[in-house]
Amino acid sequence: MSTAKIRLYVEHPLGQGQTVPLDRDHAHYLFGVMRQGTGDAVLLFNGHDGEWRATVAQASKRSGELLVEDQTRPQQNPPDLWLLFAPIKKARTDFIVEKAAEMGAARIIPVQTDFTNSERIRQDRLQAHAVEAAEQCGGTYVPEVTDLHKLDRLLADWPEERKLMFCDEALAGEREAVHTDERANPWAILIGPEGGFSDAERARLHALPFAHPTALGPRILRADTAAVAAMTVWQQRFGDWT
Amino acid sequence: MSTAKIRLYVEHPLGQGQTVPLDRDHAHYLFGVMRQGTGDAVLLFNGHDGEWRATVAQASKRSGELLVEDQTRPQQNPPDLWLLFAPIKKARTDFIVEKAAEMGAARIIPVQTDFTNSERIRQDRLQAHAVEAAEQCGGTYVPEVTDLHKLDRLLADWPEERKLMFCDEALAGEREAVHTDERANPWAILIGPEGGFSDAERARLHALPFAHPTALGPRILRADTAAVAAMTVWQQRFGDWT
Repeated sequence: MSTAKIRLYVEHPLGQGQTVPLDRDHAHYLFGVMRQGTGDAVLLFNGHDGEWRATVAQASKRSGELLVEDQTRPQQNPPDLWLLFAPIKKARTDFIVEKAAEMGAARIIPVQTDFTNSERIRQDRLQAHAVEAAEQCGGTYVPEVTDLHKLDRLLADWPEERKLMFCDEALAGEREAVHTDERANPWAILIGPEGGFSDAERARLHALPFAHPTALGPRILRADTAAVAAMTVWQQRFGDWT
Repeated sequence: MSTAKIRLYVEHPLGQGQTVPLDRDHAHYLFGVMRQGTGDAVLLFNGHDGEWRATVAQASKRSGELLVEDQTRPQQNPPDLWLLFAPIKKARTDFIVEKAAEMGAARIIPVQTDFTNSERIRQDRLQAHAVEAAEQCGGTYVPEVTDLHKLDRLLADWPEERKLMFCDEALAGEREAVHTDERANPWAILIGPEGGFSDAERARLHALPFAHPTALGPRILRADTAAVAAMTVWQQRFGDWT
């Protein structure tokens, strides 16, 4: 029995004895790039049936078929954590999405703030980054990347039971990380744009009953660093790291 | 009095009334790129005299002079933390150095492991990234980036009082973050290469009396994500985040 090293996300039910047809991209990747052939094993997950070992039943340049054999890992959903961030330069935005998937966010919401430059994002491209990160990190879940939302509207419609860890760089060095023990609640983390929040946004955020202003150490972190640091703090305190 | 928004690292003593000559790169950046002129203010730090406000006394295309006026922040050195990491693809290596500076490492040591591809690094380029990150994050200290070291030799000459937080991706999901309260000691964090540690390295690392094997949650993190997550864990527990 060959050991599977390749992990693929597929949009297909997974269960013992299932056959999974491969689309052109997956066939090209598996057989062209990775030089796999009939009988070779790959790991599959679809976001809700756990991880399964499958073997190549048919291989051609542009298509193929896998046969699902046995479950290698049960489904594990991440904690109910949203990551809200203001899109920045392309490479760093890609990194934030990748890191949110690795760190176990359930949903990734790009937000437009007063000082955000982006008017639009490529949601499909960001979603593809999340899939790739999930394949790489061994998770069985792919976080959903939503379209760009205006922060003020999102806050106006906020579900009150969801706590918001609001990372305010203006607090750098002034306050310890998030003070609360509300482990049971769903949460969201909000990372500000590179230019910080506007005074109006900051005042509004500090006044919200569900918001927990949080400092991430004494230095000012770039948005992508802050995203990983905030998710680390959160996962250790409330999430699936303990 | 104009407010300074630009921060520069200079290799020059800083104190009230000092004049600081600008090299060609700094003059080009300040006067060409940032359109500053005589009387405009900048913030300066040199890694040991704290942060100072200075004003432009002379400006020309290729040179210039600043007059140091008053101290805006005392010198703050980071905790005695080394970050050891195995260099990976260029962009991610640059990110790790940048993030180590933002997260407050005192020294950054690229290491060659059994599964590291790089035979050499551009130390000067990585050091420049650390300077840029220090300028951006508001710190008054620039971590030293060393040349590439072989991990086995580094461990053979290891100073015994320095604890090593060894982030082993093989432990993913198995063990909580670092178990110890040795706050007083100097520390180092070791992040493995993308391909993981070799069995020989892992056995050796687990046997070292100063090593603390540590898991960073249930998913496998890329090296740059792991570096930020590990420094967050460390700074919260032992460092300057509390």
